[in-house]
Amino acid sequence: MIAELISIGTELTAGLAVDTNTAWLASRLAACGVETRRHVTVTDERAAIAEEVARATSAADIVIVTGGLGPTEDDLTRQAVADALGVDLERHPAVLAQVRAFFDRRALNWMESNARQAEFPAGTTPIQNDWGTAPGFRARFGRAVLFCVPGVPREMREMFEHAILPELRDLGIAGATAIRTLRCFGAGEARMGERIADLMCPGRDTTVGITADEGIISVRIIARAAAPEEAAALADRDAVEISARLGNLVFGRENDTLASAVGALLRSRGWRLATAESCTGGLLAKLFTDVPGSSDHFLCSAVTYSDQAKTDLLGVDPRLVAEHGAVSEQVGRAMAAACLARAGADAALATTGIAGPGGGSAEKPVGLVYIGLATAAGCEVRQFQFGAHLSRASIRQRTCLTALNMLRTRLLG
Amino acid sequence: MIAELISIGTELTAGLAVDTNTAWLASRLAACGVETRRHVTVTDERAAIAEEVARATSAADIVIVTGGLGPTEDDLTRQAVADALGVDLERHPAVLAQVRAFFDRRALNWMESNARQAEFPAGTTPIQNDWGTAPGFRARFGRAVLFCVPGVPREMREMFEHAILPELRDLGIAGATAIRTLRCFGAGEARMGERIADLMCPGRDTTVGITADEGIISVRIIARAAAPEEAAALADRDAVEISARLGNLVFGRENDTLASAVGALLRSRGWRLATAESCTGGLLAKLFTDVPGSSDHFLCSAVTYSDQAKTDLLGVDPRLVAEHGAVSEQVGRAMAAACLARAGADAALATTGIAGPGGGSAEKPVGLVYIGLATAAGCEVRQFQFGAHLSRASIRQRTCLTALNMLRTRLLG
Repeated sequence: MIAELISIGTELTAGLAVDTNTAWLASRLAACGVETRRHVTVTDERAAIAEEVARATSAADIVIVTGGLGPTEDDLTRQAVADALGVDLERHPAVLAQVRAFFDRRALNWMESNARQAEFPAGTTPIQNDWGTAPGFRARFGRAVLFCVPGVPREMREMFEHAILPELRDLGIAGATAIRTLRCFGAGEARMGERIADLMCPGRDTTVGITADEGIISVRIIARAAAPEEAAALADRDAVEISARLGNLVFGRENDTLASAVGALLRSRGWRLATAESCTGGLLAKLFTDVPGSSDHFLCSAVTYSDQAKTDLLGVDPRLVAEHGAVSEQVGRAMAAACLARAGADAALATTGIAGPGGGSAEKPVGLVYIGLATAAGCEVRQFQFGAHLSRASIRQRTCLTALNMLRTRLLG
Repeated sequence: MIAELISIGTELTAGLAVDTNTAWLASRLAACGVETRRHVTVTDERAAIAEEVARATSAADIVIVTGGLGPTEDDLTRQAVADALGVDLERHPAVLAQVRAFFDRRALNWMESNARQAEFPAGTTPIQNDWGTAPGFRARFGRAVLFCVPGVPREMREMFEHAILPELRDLGIAGATAIRTLRCFGAGEARMGERIADLMCPGRDTTVGITADEGIISVRIIARAAAPEEAAALADRDAVEISARLGNLVFGRENDTLASAVGALLRSRGWRLATAESCTGGLLAKLFTDVPGSSDHFLCSAVTYSDQAKTDLLGVDPRLVAEHGAVSEQVGRAMAAACLARAGADAALATTGIAGPGGGSAEKPVGLVYIGLATAAGCEVRQFQFGAHLSRASIRQRTCLTALNMLRTRLLG
């Protein structure tokens, strides 16, 4: 079963709002074994909407239209679908009574334009909306079942769960989908891709894809089968195979972040962490504390942005800074060691570098970063050159991911 | 001039990721006077991509395709566009050398599959990518100019600004549009909207709109005219009028953040700031240090996530924490005062609260936050209830924005 989604609204095509409805619908449909092949977003224009509805209903089994069902002049979905079907609009007195009752229950001000919301293309069936003022409707059209629901995310979601999903079940849309995502760090997309190239070829019983975002590589496995257990088994089979091939490059699954993965490793060891940050300026601590429950392993961060603060908060010898500069292997080492001792932690990470765009020199260019990792076993400092072409935000982000991965690698032994 | 956007990727059609590229592109195009009429998202399928490219290039003047330019098997945009154009792929030795040089500069591991990224449909022109490994390309196709760029948001944005936009200017498309954005904080969207409702009516010589994102309200003024100076004059006229009506609610313009605006105020006063963070866990320091040059006013942050760290790093009396709890007016005050003294700062901000989702109680629910502001004049602590319905990320974000605005208001007198 193939689905296509149509989003209506000039606020979406003009980029004034990000459309989150389609991603939500596609993932809900996938969970029911329906593959979404295509999304289209069009302006509030009657002919354009009618054209997209006609096109989608000739290509897919299920078409869901969101938006354009309100009471105002720019809400044209009802009229456009009527055009596409070649029928007129008809007012449904029973639906009109429901809409008025909704207004009365909430003491909302009734406007005559709201009566439009009880008009539907002839031959279609209204879908009740208990969560807002705009009812939806459904119709058989071409090879497809067409559902039109409001674009308000909460109303759309409730109507999907309570009206569309039961109908898809009644239609006997069988099958199931299982999705697994492996989160990876430590090698480029191409290198990881070569190791699993054979699994990404068309014609297999799963779909495997790779995406990269700021150094984090995600491998996604989508499996479809007749029964949920069968789909899960196929997806799990690939997840095991890919995990074996990529080894420790895989740090987690689904919504894991590098910080949550490192946090889980710290927790399992009973270790407590502190950080000392210069160039990352609080970002490293922020990534750890983004994760609920991080207080069981994250103690503190000394964000020592000024040279003076390195001495005041951490006790770094000011002569080290004077002799080698704040961005140096020596200061990175002193920050990590002092942080470990002062916080009474089991591990300490320290960052010092030049995030740019200013402050670089021939000797110490933008992108030069030292990362220190101190434990009871000693202190390791590594130098990185992330590249002066990167933005300040990217250099800070990569510094944090690299620091997290240094600690992860250490924890994995 | 009409634009259409095509996003490539099964992760998008399957709902595994939300497409933010199209909204960004549409708003940037709108700023150049180009109207985006339609977005399409398709799976990583060669024939489907080719079909959408052919369709869009026959309907629009500008078509921008994002995604599918990586080095792996599922990156099919180059091949699909070649199919649509009826040409073969050609390897460009000069581009290959650039891509290899990018790998060498960053000491990345070269794989033979990366060479694919230097292959383009015959007759198209490569677009250099200085921010990643995948070059883009452009072509005249049907009535349209077609641009293909990577789907990685950062690379796509840089390539739009540095390659697509200059070409649109050369084509005489991006002409006399002036845009001003006023950034505001401290009142709701509806309340600000009421004060400037008459300026948002249709039929004026500018377009004024309001959007809200996590408490930051942005007022956008778009002016179109025959000549650039004329458009600029119209936009500036509205910016002056709106600034006068909204007063101190306006904290900045264009890409200013609340942290950059506060940083500028600190700089102009010669003040230096330190922060002491519990529930915000480094985010407040991160927001200040996101801004290049922040080292002239931002000294340090003591991210005292554990109770012990509040004593170790700041010297907060542990009896205060035992008696009132870490989330209390008393501890917020002690953190701010200790931070001011220890850092030798002119102002100190402290945060302590319950960011959730766990850790709340009837007495101290999720969303309860104390913010302290200490200066030589004394220490003010305010209590906020951001609401238990908000996510951990939203509560942390709002805590930081509110703290920043407390300091801004103080600095403005």
